[in-house]
Amino acid sequence: MAKEITSREEDYSQWYLDIVKKAGLADNSAVRGCMVIKPNGYAIWENMRDQLDSMFKETGHVNAYFPLFIPKSFLSKEAEHVEGFAKECAVVTHHRLMNNPDGPGVVVDPSAKLEEELIVRPTSETIIWNTYKDWIKSYRDLPLLINQWANVVRWELRTRPFLRTTEFLWQEGHTAHVTQQEAMAEALLIHDLYATFCEEYMAMPVLKGAKTANERFAGAVETYSIEALMQDGKALQAGTSHFLGQNFAKAFDVKFLSEENKEEYVWATSWGVSTRLVGGLIMTHSDDAGLVIPPKLAPTQVMIVPIPKPNTEIDEVVQEIMKGLKAKGISVKYDNDMKKRPGFKFAEHEMRGIPVRIGIGMRDLANGVVEVARRDTKEKSSVPREGVAEYVEQVLVDIQNNLFQRALDFRTEHTSYADDMETFADLIENKGGFVYAHWDGTTETELAIKEKTKATIRCIPIDAEEDPGKCILTGKPSRFRVPFAKAY
Amino acid sequence: MAKEITSREEDYSQWYLDIVKKAGLADNSAVRGCMVIKPNGYAIWENMRDQLDSMFKETGHVNAYFPLFIPKSFLSKEAEHVEGFAKECAVVTHHRLMNNPDGPGVVVDPSAKLEEELIVRPTSETIIWNTYKDWIKSYRDLPLLINQWANVVRWELRTRPFLRTTEFLWQEGHTAHVTQQEAMAEALLIHDLYATFCEEYMAMPVLKGAKTANERFAGAVETYSIEALMQDGKALQAGTSHFLGQNFAKAFDVKFLSEENKEEYVWATSWGVSTRLVGGLIMTHSDDAGLVIPPKLAPTQVMIVPIPKPNTEIDEVVQEIMKGLKAKGISVKYDNDMKKRPGFKFAEHEMRGIPVRIGIGMRDLANGVVEVARRDTKEKSSVPREGVAEYVEQVLVDIQNNLFQRALDFRTEHTSYADDMETFADLIENKGGFVYAHWDGTTETELAIKEKTKATIRCIPIDAEEDPGKCILTGKPSRFRVPFAKAY
Repeated sequence: MAKEITSREEDYSQWYLDIVKKAGLADNSAVRGCMVIKPNGYAIWENMRDQLDSMFKETGHVNAYFPLFIPKSFLSKEAEHVEGFAKECAVVTHHRLMNNPDGPGVVVDPSAKLEEELIVRPTSETIIWNTYKDWIKSYRDLPLLINQWANVVRWELRTRPFLRTTEFLWQEGHTAHVTQQEAMAEALLIHDLYATFCEEYMAMPVLKGAKTANERFAGAVETYSIEALMQDGKALQAGTSHFLGQNFAKAFDVKFLSEENKEEYVWATSWGVSTRLVGGLIMTHSDDAGLVIPPKLAPTQVMIVPIPKPNTEIDEVVQEIMKGLKAKGISVKYDNDMKKRPGFKFAEHEMRGIPVRIGIGMRDLANGVVEVARRDTKEKSSVPREGVAEYVEQVLVDIQNNLFQRALDFRTEHTSYADDMETFADLIENKGGFVYAHWDGTTETELAIKEKTKATIRCIPIDAEEDPGKCILTGKPSRFRVPFAKAY
Repeated sequence: MAKEITSREEDYSQWYLDIVKKAGLADNSAVRGCMVIKPNGYAIWENMRDQLDSMFKETGHVNAYFPLFIPKSFLSKEAEHVEGFAKECAVVTHHRLMNNPDGPGVVVDPSAKLEEELIVRPTSETIIWNTYKDWIKSYRDLPLLINQWANVVRWELRTRPFLRTTEFLWQEGHTAHVTQQEAMAEALLIHDLYATFCEEYMAMPVLKGAKTANERFAGAVETYSIEALMQDGKALQAGTSHFLGQNFAKAFDVKFLSEENKEEYVWATSWGVSTRLVGGLIMTHSDDAGLVIPPKLAPTQVMIVPIPKPNTEIDEVVQEIMKGLKAKGISVKYDNDMKKRPGFKFAEHEMRGIPVRIGIGMRDLANGVVEVARRDTKEKSSVPREGVAEYVEQVLVDIQNNLFQRALDFRTEHTSYADDMETFADLIENKGGFVYAHWDGTTETELAIKEKTKATIRCIPIDAEEDPGKCILTGKPSRFRVPFAKAY
């Protein structure tokens, strides 16, 4: 199986597509740019969702669900928002089909034209703030801390499974607050929560910071982003949280009566991560043998394979081992398929990224041991049967830590500093990764550097120490360096 | 608060809408027929989803996700399916908006017309079977036991929160099998699973059986349905599972190579329940004081209210009680809002259907007791503080059982038998509920009875005992009675 994967060195982009396909994560669909998320891929997303959901709830958020459709006129209410989102979107114009009067099949019924077209939500600020208008009357109704898990549609030109698709799954939080300070604190709380999730669960280190004005969410006053580094040296924007100021409150006229009995506009945030994270997970950890999944998000953490074939003796021992693992909350499966050989199974589970494989043969049985193989390092150990649950529990922790450390080391190795355009362009082009450089703070310079090198400023670190220097393009003064990279 | 609800006797339909609104379950939206599911309503749906999801997984099913959009031509491939679903649906015709050249706002960009229109899925058989075509080659690929949690859109004329909305949330299972027997067994397995869920978790008794030919899912060979009885005497179809035969396999040309190396069409099922269940839950248990939620699905099972106001002494005792309840897996909240009076809180939690309320005042504190109030019977008991966790645990079980028994008794009281059309029409019109009557088995008779009385055959019991009689309309022979009712 593994030999069917293109190596990263040969063609990184094809390697990614091969893993998505061979590990059963996603498939193309009959609809342009929309993918089918297959069971193996969906199970990873489910684990991400459940973990994030519990983190949202622990911080006081609740879930709700808003309509898929947005009246066209809503999009125009916030001036910048419409520029960002109204352009490439799915437009519903009719509500009925009819039998084709001129032949077989069905056609759109022209008499069922909608009075106002509906847009399939590309993001839900407009429909949600139109609703909040009815929910918020007084400071007592605030804060509103609401999240929704939903599908959204953006008519993308170039798509790639998980990383950029026309339809994708995500969560979008939309909060409303009494004060600017409280809304800003919320945006930063979620910024930190996303970083914690990526590092502790996905084992994917991220840079934190604010987006430049040019890269901000359409309608936001400030956008905070976490930025991960993929194995090809390109950055991936993994999650954003936006401080929206009073922009949407003003666009939808959402005011509240303050404790001092004054009418004021509400302060807002919004924030989201999507199935794009599955793409980030794949590209951070996987290797030329296939997918690698961090244990904390692996749908199956341990796979037990009998060698050469299952029999009652082995079955009994396996049931005992599974009981021990399950008691520790470890998810384990027994691959007792008679139709496949052990070698085939090994390759398959490796391809699918299962963190730990336990092999057990007749000789192991006699010796009271099992073989424990790690997916990350491919090391194998012979382990006494009695202590196997404790051993595996520790191995799962070790794999989780090792994957994070490996990704962090990769990022450290691919982090450079440049003080002039030539060095900068060379590093971006030939080494890749994050290149820290001085920038004069203007959109003009940012765009000129992008034009020359395809690199963008990934984020502006929030608490960067003063380290004055000169902009690599204009020579104007700069207070600290910012990380540039080519990005997905 | 409670007095703001219309009583059931006065106006059942308004009572339902009042509860949906006052208990914070759902709200109307700016989009015709689409509701906003508010946090209290969504939390109930989440609990339903999690419980069903674990039951699906225990029976070997996995989740996946298929595209929101279906190419128009797919709908026409299964002849009956298109009749059932192509008529009232949301049609996407364009993929871009542009600034209005003649004024403010945005308009559809005529140059961005899709070559083939896309339908927002009303159900996913067609897009899924078009995908299964690529996934199924051999008997080794079968069975495929896949479920998806998704939103769907049907352009309904008359809508009602949860019960019938243009967009709704649901799960749809789509399975593929080697043999007819296996597919039929799957359809019945899910039929039973749905009934178990409704009775054991929703505390809502259901009748089980097959739909008549006339009421079958468009494209199915057999549809199994569970039917609940609401407090106004109308039936609610709560969940259906369909044996699809080879209809979709033939429409999408999905064949497999059998163990005997022969090419054969695949056998199929599909099955679903939706947010309609939330409507069923509301209408089965609630009363004139508001919502009543069965403990097994209640997002908050116990609410603790201090009387008259929280203070450090009470807070300490409450923390102790909460610890004890949480240790038993009971979800509990402490309403220590200083701005609201206890009486207001009591009415609010009653309206929201929280199963158990614990009140604790200064005298209770001195006496070492708390007051435990049940939402279902409104009984109150003074309970020693030490044993409160065990006591509440048992009360929650009692409430769950009592709600089911009460609903079952209601159904028994509202189940009648008629041997002639006059009695039948009178019972349907004046008593409501299920009326068992003999029917000659023809669609013609079924429709004629519906025309006269608005009652439909809810289902044909699968293992009905022979009990010969004569059709109430035509006098033709009938082997057993079937349950009729007016329905939602």
